Amino acid sequence: MSMPAAQQPSPQLFFQTINAHQRTEALKAALELEVFTAIGEGNTTAAEIAKRCQTSEKGMRVLCDFLTIMEMLTKQGGRYALTLDSATFLDKRSPAYLGGATEFLCSPMLTDGAKHMAEAVRKGGTALENDGTVGPDHPVWVKFARAMAPMMALPSQLVAKLVDPNADRKLKILDIAAGHGLYGISFATNNSQAEITAVDWKAVLEVAKENAQKAGVADRYSTIEGSAFDVEFGTGYDLILLTNFLHHFDPTTCETLLRKVRAALADGGRAVTLEFVPNDDRVTPPDAAAFSVMMLTSTPSGDAYTFAELERMFANAGFSRSTFHPLPPTIQQVIISEK
Amino acid sequence: MSMPAAQQPSPQLFFQTINAHQRTEALKAALELEVFTAIGEGNTTAAEIAKRCQTSEKGMRVLCDFLTIMEMLTKQGGRYALTLDSATFLDKRSPAYLGGATEFLCSPMLTDGAKHMAEAVRKGGTALENDGTVGPDHPVWVKFARAMAPMMALPSQLVAKLVDPNADRKLKILDIAAGHGLYGISFATNNSQAEITAVDWKAVLEVAKENAQKAGVADRYSTIEGSAFDVEFGTGYDLILLTNFLHHFDPTTCETLLRKVRAALADGGRAVTLEFVPNDDRVTPPDAAAFSVMMLTSTPSGDAYTFAELERMFANAGFSRSTFHPLPPTIQQVIISEK
Repeated sequence: MSMPAAQQPSPQLFFQTINAHQRTEALKAALELEVFTAIGEGNTTAAEIAKRCQTSEKGMRVLCDFLTIMEMLTKQGGRYALTLDSATFLDKRSPAYLGGATEFLCSPMLTDGAKHMAEAVRKGGTALENDGTVGPDHPVWVKFARAMAPMMALPSQLVAKLVDPNADRKLKILDIAAGHGLYGISFATNNSQAEITAVDWKAVLEVAKENAQKAGVADRYSTIEGSAFDVEFGTGYDLILLTNFLHHFDPTTCETLLRKVRAALADGGRAVTLEFVPNDDRVTPPDAAAFSVMMLTSTPSGDAYTFAELERMFANAGFSRSTFHPLPPTIQQVIISEK
Repeated sequence: MSMPAAQQPSPQLFFQTINAHQRTEALKAALELEVFTAIGEGNTTAAEIAKRCQTSEKGMRVLCDFLTIMEMLTKQGGRYALTLDSATFLDKRSPAYLGGATEFLCSPMLTDGAKHMAEAVRKGGTALENDGTVGPDHPVWVKFARAMAPMMALPSQLVAKLVDPNADRKLKILDIAAGHGLYGISFATNNSQAEITAVDWKAVLEVAKENAQKAGVADRYSTIEGSAFDVEFGTGYDLILLTNFLHHFDPTTCETLLRKVRAALADGGRAVTLEFVPNDDRVTPPDAAAFSVMMLTSTPSGDAYTFAELERMFANAGFSRSTFHPLPPTIQQVIISEK
């Protein structure tokens, strides 16, 4: 024991990491039991929260202590309180409630992929059959469209304001793999002269159309059913949105699509890509970099691409220039590529 | 966007936590593929490590980047290196290799318990049938005895030195729920006059006896087969070891056992308890406090007890005085209770 304390090896990180699955389960349980909502309503002791959520007091104490250790709650004198993040995203009464996103993020498609990680590392792609999540018309994307919309509300508004800050001219916009449709819809609500065409599987577009209706932009919203790789886009678009799409494919496949995207743009048109973009070191920022794990385990050849890699794909597809834009406070980034 | 950046809500922690199960899977995959061992052997690029571990280069790059994000590796100029912790605990060639502990920590008994967390919170104890891990003669404890021994090597030596620093007198020691037997065995290797009697299920004691043989102390090692609650301990023990045992039971059950323990001690004898002991706030230190989640989800009424709670149990059982001893660099603590 002559080494200084800081240089003593500790099994702490091993223990935390091997048990990290408990964190996922605890968050899922807390959302299912409405713990954050109960605290937001003013229940602050384990006994009060347990009564509101119809659980044992002991179980609720253990769960709330663990949520505190995970920094999703605070605890002072036996009373729990929401953090700013929890109040914003985990209390059901908040308009930015993200609890529904667990339907997608914890769907067997994604968690089963992660469970076969060693095999995915061996193969260099998902160990799941039928190409994981990128198989044709995969039902997970309807789940995605319904579950992830709340998580996309803020980012979609930030992207629209970044790309169309003045919102003062007519825009013809193609939203590729629109999903819930929120990115296109946010351009339409941001600019009353924006007209959106959304591309996705038929069942997914039903969700997007519902959302366009709710947002009051259905009269400027049309759809093209099918795979972005197969359908006719038409031409003359001022903007083409590629949000959370390229990461599912290898660079060659991306370039094929980007050539088609470029051909559909009007002169002076721009492709707008939203992605998890790690730095060149591929380990920072941590959330963007770690996204590569989800792609490795759930797609045959997807990845979290660096800006240099994306820039090269766009250049190879004939785009003249790409620029990089962080999108705080989200954990994603925007690439704007000029035809 | 007029709020200062530090006060903007971010979905980062939600996203990290809902995906935390990937951390468990990545560590399991890295151990299965011998990634840490490969790096310890001198393979430092993704291509070199992939070749050694017979995986795709891309998959290995994604895995090693994720291990770097998790601070289990470092990365500089595309070359990965082990941290002090990884070199000590995760390289198979290290005597302190902990990889085998995943056999127990990731056994379905523990992970299935965690998967039913909401139900465990409702009940206040495991949602698994047959009382989870504390059912009679449960086979998980043979797995535990084999898998966890390496993780216990350092703590068991530290406990022996803490309790018997001079190692200069005859000691009669009872090791309750001995498991792998390492705690008792470390007292025997630390002090050549120590004689150990180990209590556990018959199949588990086979593992303990093997370990006593390997440590060269088999001639001072005897066993009592059965439940610690049922068997006759005998009397006149100088030390009775309760390592990682009390957390499986409710306080009343613990007190019943502690009365029996006290009766088996010689005058001046001591009970030595090793536990995950949270502070009174129950949220620090994080690893000891978080252990309550494993007990909630895998036992009917276990918990991570505070020192105040343990002190009360020992006092109620007739012990005169209990003292608290941290055991750095482990994440556990020792309570020494005097008859």
